[in-house]
Amino acid sequence: MTLAAPDDFVAELRALAPRYWDSHPFHLRMHEGSLSKHELQAWAANRWYYQRCIAQKDAAILSNCPLPDVRRQWRERIIWHDGTQPGEGGAENWLRLAEAVGLTREEVLDERHVLPGTRFAVDAYVTFARTKPWVEAVASGLTEMFSGALMRKRLAALREQYPWIAEEGFAYFTSRIKAVAGEGKSTLDLVVEHCVTREQQEKAIAALSFKCDVLRAVLDAVDYYSGKGKP
Amino acid sequence: MTLAAPDDFVAELRALAPRYWDSHPFHLRMHEGSLSKHELQAWAANRWYYQRCIAQKDAAILSNCPLPDVRRQWRERIIWHDGTQPGEGGAENWLRLAEAVGLTREEVLDERHVLPGTRFAVDAYVTFARTKPWVEAVASGLTEMFSGALMRKRLAALREQYPWIAEEGFAYFTSRIKAVAGEGKSTLDLVVEHCVTREQQEKAIAALSFKCDVLRAVLDAVDYYSGKGKP
Repeated sequence: MTLAAPDDFVAELRALAPRYWDSHPFHLRMHEGSLSKHELQAWAANRWYYQRCIAQKDAAILSNCPLPDVRRQWRERIIWHDGTQPGEGGAENWLRLAEAVGLTREEVLDERHVLPGTRFAVDAYVTFARTKPWVEAVASGLTEMFSGALMRKRLAALREQYPWIAEEGFAYFTSRIKAVAGEGKSTLDLVVEHCVTREQQEKAIAALSFKCDVLRAVLDAVDYYSGKGKP
Repeated sequence: MTLAAPDDFVAELRALAPRYWDSHPFHLRMHEGSLSKHELQAWAANRWYYQRCIAQKDAAILSNCPLPDVRRQWRERIIWHDGTQPGEGGAENWLRLAEAVGLTREEVLDERHVLPGTRFAVDAYVTFARTKPWVEAVASGLTEMFSGALMRKRLAALREQYPWIAEEGFAYFTSRIKAVAGEGKSTLDLVVEHCVTREQQEKAIAALSFKCDVLRAVLDAVDYYSGKGKP
């Protein structure tokens, strides 16, 4: 198998865009304004489990990476999620969103609303980062090529369709939109540089596909139990 | 089994001091000035393998730790070792020491002088951090309770006994002595706070003992092959 040229490899990665969760039925319902408050709460509480695991996922990548230059670049994600002091950072901002949709911090942190499907999917993602070569785990993060557009759309939709959500609740999105403004360019550069065989390129593509599965599985669970209560 | 009171638990940890590698025959010979240049080179090249794995070991601890407060504290170690840009940080400073004792950067980085005994010991340490509960892995770092005194002594001995080593070579020690000036206090506080059963306390003591074994095994290998060339 021949190594694909960088542009062709990048095109293969970008071709996974339709598998990103922006087109998931639950997101479509969210954006058109048809979710109940209870459904938004289920979404925020389940997605919290993903948010709380991200710093550990990124640390697993650091732990598997022998290259100081890459580690210096990647550790910024941990700092972004955990913040520089208690009450800061991406994870904390997600908690504020959960509160803005009417959950207490306690019921989010004790994970009582987290569905088994969410837990299995997110745990699989952390395990992937712990056990796969670092460049594959980095490639799984390439959903950030697609996330900026989704978050800009969502922020506008939430403000318009759910005016009862207080503006403080949107700090996660406003800061994350800035953080991913590069649309995954630096991550893409890393993946292109360090996938030096066709096999590695294919594993990177598979990793991004796997990550799309993880994200979709979270929404699948939330959507399936919408209006049904917990399993 | 009853949980030991904090002071008693700390005393048990401190009681491991005689197992720290300051009393290893190779260190004693180093400090009295009887190592050849070749022996100092073997030491620097083998210890490099330990230095280059430390950031990954610390990232493994982050990856296993679900507490953002602890992660914020612990990530500073990764930043210390990797520095803020290429050419900075603890690992880089160790490379400068290796150069100051007459090794080329290339022969250090390609690990040609790293003995199997060094590799097995250091790899075991990284595996320990990846697979054990984070508080045990943190406890294994409590050798920093003992390392300040050793490094102050060593720095004086190296300057006096091996005056041919250029002062630039000592940046690792001068910066590390500052970094461990707290003599492990913050690490000790973490371990005391998060070992809430006697079983966890005993595992923490065992972890520190294991770490002493790791460090000693590196010097055992270097000392055994002193003057013999590579196995």
